[in-house]
Amino acid sequence: MKQKVGIIKIGGAFLEDEKLLEKFYSAFSAMEGLKILVHGGGQRASKLSTDLGITPQMVHGRRITDAKSLEVVTMVYAGWANKTLVAGLQGRGCNALGLSGADANLIRALRRPVKDIDYGLVGDVERVNTEGLSTLLNAGFTPVFCALTHDGKGQLLNTNADSIAADLAMALSPAYEVRLIYCFEKQGVLRNVNDPESVIPSMDTDNFKSLQKEGVISAGMIPKLFNSFRALQAGVDQVIIGPVSLLSGQAPKYTQIQL
Amino acid sequence: MKQKVGIIKIGGAFLEDEKLLEKFYSAFSAMEGLKILVHGGGQRASKLSTDLGITPQMVHGRRITDAKSLEVVTMVYAGWANKTLVAGLQGRGCNALGLSGADANLIRALRRPVKDIDYGLVGDVERVNTEGLSTLLNAGFTPVFCALTHDGKGQLLNTNADSIAADLAMALSPAYEVRLIYCFEKQGVLRNVNDPESVIPSMDTDNFKSLQKEGVISAGMIPKLFNSFRALQAGVDQVIIGPVSLLSGQAPKYTQIQL
Repeated sequence: MKQKVGIIKIGGAFLEDEKLLEKFYSAFSAMEGLKILVHGGGQRASKLSTDLGITPQMVHGRRITDAKSLEVVTMVYAGWANKTLVAGLQGRGCNALGLSGADANLIRALRRPVKDIDYGLVGDVERVNTEGLSTLLNAGFTPVFCALTHDGKGQLLNTNADSIAADLAMALSPAYEVRLIYCFEKQGVLRNVNDPESVIPSMDTDNFKSLQKEGVISAGMIPKLFNSFRALQAGVDQVIIGPVSLLSGQAPKYTQIQL
Repeated sequence: MKQKVGIIKIGGAFLEDEKLLEKFYSAFSAMEGLKILVHGGGQRASKLSTDLGITPQMVHGRRITDAKSLEVVTMVYAGWANKTLVAGLQGRGCNALGLSGADANLIRALRRPVKDIDYGLVGDVERVNTEGLSTLLNAGFTPVFCALTHDGKGQLLNTNADSIAADLAMALSPAYEVRLIYCFEKQGVLRNVNDPESVIPSMDTDNFKSLQKEGVISAGMIPKLFNSFRALQAGVDQVIIGPVSLLSGQAPKYTQIQL
């Protein structure tokens, strides 16, 4: 029987909300079995950029990453966000180990080719080092990944955290029973963005298409759903989008993703 | 027979000098056997502080670290400096794994008690988790430590990189044959700070005292030497202060520290 592993993605917004962060720390620390955390930090990166006089440039919700912006996201994601989470989890007895994709060569990426848009120092995951990751998991560490990868030739690359979570889940799925949870401040995918109770309990590619046509899926949710379908198609056992209380199995509502 | 491990400390100045950094990458990557890197980043932290309108406050060369300054050093040390070094070393075939003392609970520190000066969120090393560190070394990773620790209760602490290097060396010395190298842009401890050739080949506590009386030891060198003596007294096999070429055994001059 395969060992179970939970891959939890949280947004950077968690780090800006003390109450939510506390709730997360408790729920995540208490989770049994192997687990991996993936986190963002875009909100704070944009704030630091602005404070330093660099105007953040976003296209389709993705950051155009020149050399200066890469320094900013490296400082915020791998520095402030990652170490705040690691120290917080360690304080609650979770043996967290912070990582970027460059560390132990865990996630190698290809710099995104320039087509209509030059995203700059942005990478798409090419290869997850599952052997290295398994070594860390089996040694009792809880990997905490920030949204940075590398090209294996010395260059760090900015990489979307939702995609990293999906790619880690896909890479581990031949050897583990993998559950991927996109955890955020809402209860799940909403039919009406203004009604927090309007959670869609189950979503497959068919109703995704029709809901997308109706325009009820918010822009930020679309890449999360694409990543969810991509993960399921590659053999990931379960993908869920929902609130922190999911981690303790106490969410009254959430969205289960299906093919 | 004990396994050998080399602990190399470099200053943050290495990261600001492309030629020196390249030289370091080559020499460090080529070093055989177990090795650990410890790095600073104070120069860049002071620059980022100033850019953000926070005036860096230093006492006896140590940073007074309030909550805002801790964010700055966490971003610079654990983010920019650490991940730049890790990606650079990975690009040269060295399986670097970036760490703060919070990661895997590797270095726990005590917040420095307030006497004449309140250093703020500054910690002195209390306990190195040698078991966790050995696990990483034996798995084939090369740990790269930034100058941050934690108190085990959720709080990150700013900790001097020279001290971290000495404390790691001391903690590993019962199980390993440890060589501690303080690597910097000069050739060694200088008798005359304006003459780069005036390297003192060997230094013990006696001639340290007399040279200190003469006033020929520079202010920045004194804590390095205190850490060196402290490490030797605790059983560390060898402590050297010198240039990058030491790592490839090709340094024409360097300073050997002795008791």
